[in-house]
Amino acid sequence: MNPEAVKKYRPFPKIDLPQRTWPNKAINTAPTWCSVDLRDGNQALIQPMSLQKKLEMFKLLTDMGFKEIEVGFPSASQVEFEFTRTLIEENLIPDDVLIQVLTQAREHLIRKTYESIRGAKEVIVHIYNSTSTLQRRTVFKMNRKEIIALAVEGAKLLKEEEQKYPETKFRYEYSPESFTGTELDFALEICEAVMEVMKPTKDNRLILNLPATVELSAPNIYADQIEWFCNNMSNREAAIISLHAHNDRGCAVAATEMALMAGGERVEGTLFGNGERTGNVDIVTLALNMFTQGVDPKLDLSDINRLVDVYERVCRLPIHPRHPYAGELVYTAFSGSHQDAINKGMTAYEVTDSGLWEVPYLPIDPSDVGRTYESIIRINSQSGKGGVAYIMDKEFGYKMPKNMHPEFGTIVQQLTDKEGRELLSKEIFAAFESTYLTARTPYSLKGFNVIKRHIDDSEKLSSALIEAEVRIGEEVKTITGKGNGPLDAFCSAMKNDITGEFTLCSYHEHALNGGSAARAAAYIEIEKPEGHKAWGVGVDTDIIVASIKAVLSALNRKK
Amino acid sequence: MNPEAVKKYRPFPKIDLPQRTWPNKAINTAPTWCSVDLRDGNQALIQPMSLQKKLEMFKLLTDMGFKEIEVGFPSASQVEFEFTRTLIEENLIPDDVLIQVLTQAREHLIRKTYESIRGAKEVIVHIYNSTSTLQRRTVFKMNRKEIIALAVEGAKLLKEEEQKYPETKFRYEYSPESFTGTELDFALEICEAVMEVMKPTKDNRLILNLPATVELSAPNIYADQIEWFCNNMSNREAAIISLHAHNDRGCAVAATEMALMAGGERVEGTLFGNGERTGNVDIVTLALNMFTQGVDPKLDLSDINRLVDVYERVCRLPIHPRHPYAGELVYTAFSGSHQDAINKGMTAYEVTDSGLWEVPYLPIDPSDVGRTYESIIRINSQSGKGGVAYIMDKEFGYKMPKNMHPEFGTIVQQLTDKEGRELLSKEIFAAFESTYLTARTPYSLKGFNVIKRHIDDSEKLSSALIEAEVRIGEEVKTITGKGNGPLDAFCSAMKNDITGEFTLCSYHEHALNGGSAARAAAYIEIEKPEGHKAWGVGVDTDIIVASIKAVLSALNRKK
Repeated sequence: MNPEAVKKYRPFPKIDLPQRTWPNKAINTAPTWCSVDLRDGNQALIQPMSLQKKLEMFKLLTDMGFKEIEVGFPSASQVEFEFTRTLIEENLIPDDVLIQVLTQAREHLIRKTYESIRGAKEVIVHIYNSTSTLQRRTVFKMNRKEIIALAVEGAKLLKEEEQKYPETKFRYEYSPESFTGTELDFALEICEAVMEVMKPTKDNRLILNLPATVELSAPNIYADQIEWFCNNMSNREAAIISLHAHNDRGCAVAATEMALMAGGERVEGTLFGNGERTGNVDIVTLALNMFTQGVDPKLDLSDINRLVDVYERVCRLPIHPRHPYAGELVYTAFSGSHQDAINKGMTAYEVTDSGLWEVPYLPIDPSDVGRTYESIIRINSQSGKGGVAYIMDKEFGYKMPKNMHPEFGTIVQQLTDKEGRELLSKEIFAAFESTYLTARTPYSLKGFNVIKRHIDDSEKLSSALIEAEVRIGEEVKTITGKGNGPLDAFCSAMKNDITGEFTLCSYHEHALNGGSAARAAAYIEIEKPEGHKAWGVGVDTDIIVASIKAVLSALNRKK
Repeated sequence: MNPEAVKKYRPFPKIDLPQRTWPNKAINTAPTWCSVDLRDGNQALIQPMSLQKKLEMFKLLTDMGFKEIEVGFPSASQVEFEFTRTLIEENLIPDDVLIQVLTQAREHLIRKTYESIRGAKEVIVHIYNSTSTLQRRTVFKMNRKEIIALAVEGAKLLKEEEQKYPETKFRYEYSPESFTGTELDFALEICEAVMEVMKPTKDNRLILNLPATVELSAPNIYADQIEWFCNNMSNREAAIISLHAHNDRGCAVAATEMALMAGGERVEGTLFGNGERTGNVDIVTLALNMFTQGVDPKLDLSDINRLVDVYERVCRLPIHPRHPYAGELVYTAFSGSHQDAINKGMTAYEVTDSGLWEVPYLPIDPSDVGRTYESIIRINSQSGKGGVAYIMDKEFGYKMPKNMHPEFGTIVQQLTDKEGRELLSKEIFAAFESTYLTARTPYSLKGFNVIKRHIDDSEKLSSALIEAEVRIGEEVKTITGKGNGPLDAFCSAMKNDITGEFTLCSYHEHALNGGSAARAAAYIEIEKPEGHKAWGVGVDTDIIVASIKAVLSALNRKK
């Protein structure tokens, strides 16, 4: 960087909070959520929502369980005004949902705001003015006293206007906008001056919203500011402390979590963090973070794909592939060791009695948000045997024995190294098929008979005599052998008549698919005549045939 | 959510840290940065980087000033091995840059790793094994003692292998992988066991990397874990405490910042947070967060567009439009009040003596990262007069008088409401032009003569007599008038002969562009014969002509 440039900035001042308590706390219950998607989110879009899109978003938000929704800034533009009217006139607001409207603390805007909500049952009127040191100096050119007068006059006007709308129940919210850029004592002073006018009580509390309109400091400082504010209020029980964090430093989620520990009770934010510049705090992430700690978020996020779908369409903004909980890649592991661990962890989870979700590298069960396991493991040159085995099992039903994983893993890795890209599942299967299932040279089975099976009286020993026709290139050879079962007998016949000595090291089989047409897969490792080991796989409706195919498959493997 | 689902999760246990100090600290110096873009980042890509792309990323990282770069996992795949060889054999590693290679603590992988770095001048060998409770149980099926033995054996092998490569200077890093899922006492025990073998000293420190391989808790807990760990080490001064945070809860930046306050000295991360699942901590955001607090980040981020460009091309991942510091929309304000404040703040900043960057809603001067002001303000239905004025000034040079902003702002807002979308700057200019500059009905100027100018002896009074030809529709009318100057005389002539009474309320002018062909823009507000006020604008190389045009422009405005 230009070494001079850094001199343009200075550290955010520390908060004097010797008895700080929030670092010892945790979030135990969900806050009151207030969606500002239709206001803060909407006003930051390249193409703001049409009336129809606002209605669609409103429907999504109520379906998710939001009970407070800031629907717009009705005095700011005609679309905003009309949307508010539409909600009220078409009776679209569920009984247990409060709409909220934002206005600056200025007379003509306040009056227009009340016009927009005529006929509503209950409304939160949210009034704000900027209180920061910087804006007082450069934007408003007013001193503290004048800025307080502005807020107080606005508050008085609220009391005055509400008389005109006796059919509506009013609740109120005041925001000292740019709170994080405001001296704490002044923020407190102006909030108390507004409370003086609004006269909230324990049973009819004023929402005091303390926004990080711009994220100016590390998130622990925001928590300090909130704790300081709560500690120093004269009438704490008559206020609901609301948080509204922006994400300029990428820490809005952290700042909100810590500010909740510090005394915040209500959170204003948006789905996936839409909002001015870097956006507002992402309520989806906040809520699912709580969920992973066993705290009921009181929002329905069980179909995250629907949220993504509506959001992307209505806001015309993408969800990043790495967005927590929602991104395309977040339930995916590419690296071999991760894939292997997930594979083992999932197996362990299936047999656990604890009921607790504990799978390495997956802090949440994807199915809890309507995602599936299928996409967890994708195969590229960074992947290992575990991932390959997972795909073969989950997508194709082949449960390769553990000892076989390295062999087929290496084959897939050579392929990805060669291709230099991710492999599709079907390409992995194609490699499996050509390696193990369809290789017919030099040996393939034409047919066989088990001539005689003998079980002795003690039922502890049995023997079988086999006669098999084996193709060797163009030639067909009939071989016979004897063993303790048909497979053993076939191996004896091969050794004696064709290949010379080899050893059967390992044998596994399982049913491949259910129903009457069930096939079996057999996996056999042999130590070959040339001295090295190789796996073979056979599939057939007859398990004996599958086993024999597996032996030939292994024998057919090139060194 | 499914109410049963939340029972699958439980809160992360608190850390017992009664003398917690980190919340009182701040970050005063940059940590040692270690980029893991070429390893952790690369292994999480749908399509991992080719050799060529790895080289391009390596070049970018060294250009930015990274002094430690994890170049890969050479024993994991052929591409990784070859890339490491290429860097060494083609002498591509700058003298002051250390490459780092990752390996699991397993014999064949360790040996292959050393082969990959033969001939390097100096290397950090980074060895890891997973230590978490969950992975010990489900993946490794080993107890604490066995897991420690695994790490110790690996460490011994490092000492043994390094003997074979006397031309290389070795430094070492050990990661208890999944540290945040590991009991703290066990994490400490295994790290101390590795230190026992490696025998680091104050002058040759071992890097102990304590990763949040999965982000499992609120970020303050990670800081607690780091502080606890530092407090309880027996040989703190022989270790460099390294952080490596993932972003599963969207808090990796916050967690890293607080963990630095808690004792961390080194940060592993990636550009823009690439990495497994939700990604690693984003070093760009971390570094620029420091920068905004007046801390030199010791990385060059002055051309953020180049970083975005290389990253998007090499990783084939997008930068989200709201990504802190780098996103397309983060230096943009749509809302009217924000635009107005930025406009005023920028003006104040231009005349400030403090040298401090203080502009509302912009935590950083966009030019410090190679971005420009032009994109700050975009105009849609949420925008106000301030934004419109800013565009007219910065893009077209028209410095509208402040009292004129509401009038033209309303005109633009009606247009955006009608269009339902963002307006291009040229569309705003077109509206300005048709409203003020090209309206020729009912009145336009055909020509004029200033017949007589009289300046009295005291030079305090002057008068002018004008004769002008004015078109009124098809008709041309010659009018004469007298006043204290040509403009005043023209107004008198208009009033007397054509329009009847109007009042000139406000007059502003400025040069429109430099050089000998400079034109002037005049802005005039009149109270019209019908009783309402309207602005007019005139442009001409002659300021008198511009003024007269402005009067006619105002008179031509429809009510």
